[in-house]
Amino acid sequence: MTFAATVLTLYPEMFPGPLGISLAGRALERGDWTLDTIQIREFANDKHRTVDDTPAGGGAGMVLKADVLAAAIDSVADGRPVLAMTPRGKPITQDRIRQLAAGPGAIILCGRFEGFDERIFAARNVEEVSLADIVLSGGEPAALAILDACIRLIPGVMGAASSGIEESFESGLLEYPQYTRPVEWEGRTIPEVLRSGDHAKIAAWRKQQAEDDTRLRRPDLWERHCGVRDQPASDARRETED
Amino acid sequence: MTFAATVLTLYPEMFPGPLGISLAGRALERGDWTLDTIQIREFANDKHRTVDDTPAGGGAGMVLKADVLAAAIDSVADGRPVLAMTPRGKPITQDRIRQLAAGPGAIILCGRFEGFDERIFAARNVEEVSLADIVLSGGEPAALAILDACIRLIPGVMGAASSGIEESFESGLLEYPQYTRPVEWEGRTIPEVLRSGDHAKIAAWRKQQAEDDTRLRRPDLWERHCGVRDQPASDARRETED
Repeated sequence: MTFAATVLTLYPEMFPGPLGISLAGRALERGDWTLDTIQIREFANDKHRTVDDTPAGGGAGMVLKADVLAAAIDSVADGRPVLAMTPRGKPITQDRIRQLAAGPGAIILCGRFEGFDERIFAARNVEEVSLADIVLSGGEPAALAILDACIRLIPGVMGAASSGIEESFESGLLEYPQYTRPVEWEGRTIPEVLRSGDHAKIAAWRKQQAEDDTRLRRPDLWERHCGVRDQPASDARRETED
Repeated sequence: MTFAATVLTLYPEMFPGPLGISLAGRALERGDWTLDTIQIREFANDKHRTVDDTPAGGGAGMVLKADVLAAAIDSVADGRPVLAMTPRGKPITQDRIRQLAAGPGAIILCGRFEGFDERIFAARNVEEVSLADIVLSGGEPAALAILDACIRLIPGVMGAASSGIEESFESGLLEYPQYTRPVEWEGRTIPEVLRSGDHAKIAAWRKQQAEDDTRLRRPDLWERHCGVRDQPASDARRETED
């Protein structure tokens, strides 16, 4: 099954952009995924091709009109999830990326200006998604990042050699640190254990590093990881006690 | 002062990409910011132009070599902050974007494959930055998003009309929902208060919405917001009690 991406945007010329190059670009050429862009402006319903209007209640900037957005979405809706890139949305996770990549594709709505008329989300079952807690000039760079993350998971896109990359995120931990030759560089050496050839020791060291780094750098991920981990652990204990 | 962006990458052809268009593109043409790309491969030190090697201790994928990365960084280092895009990094925030945008620019290191030799970070004072908890095919889409967020904050890039956009993030809350004409659309109406013309009521409603949405959608942001808010509040109470 091909992953079909459709991007609704005022700047279709931003696509495929970086997705036309390297891993994603070769996959696009092979037909592992497809990319269509829809110019939102084509769905304006006046002679000035107006897509936005001033915010109700006043304030700076402009708001994308619900009626125009709905017409643009309706022109491509076919059961694929519809995502809108907005800092008000749910933070994207690798779990959601994995779900999307396993599905038929995605319709991604990119805003500019102040944002979208709120009514579009409920009216068209649009999933509000946030890439990060930063403010972009529009949804396009966020859409590129999310599509990139999906595309690399489409079967056949990555070689077998790279297929282990996401394992670290699957466990809910940061990945352990990596090293490669030269063994000594500017007086800094690769940790002894990694040169030991002892696979069990190496695995234990990497697990410890991943746990330590997650606890120190990302207490939020660590808490979630411990919560998930405690569940089966307490079940196991109960079984033993029975 | 011009914001100078330098991107170290194996895919310089991904830049400026979307940053050559619209707001960022016009700012680039005007010289409000500059963009240089450095091909990391040019700093390889063997005839095969090798930039990566197998991970010490075994495992899938390849690791970018510290010696090659250091040579690439050293070729452009001039006191600007050096950022490496990696899921092991600190999550990017709008605060950090604001700091970067107010400075001389940034040198951004983009990896592919398994990642960077860990020694590069301490050896060259590299800031590890994560865009989101998703796995990208490389750092390039993340670099594009981070530069986009910086560029829109460079003085003169946004018109006065849009300059209020980041205010909502500054308060640590999600932005309130936006509406625009038509007043009624598919049976859904713009909330009454926004059509009242009562600016105080509108401001109060928007504040309430921003708080409610943040609490419901982003308990993490809400907790941080309350922590920050409690500080001056308790100070104020103490003053009253004195």
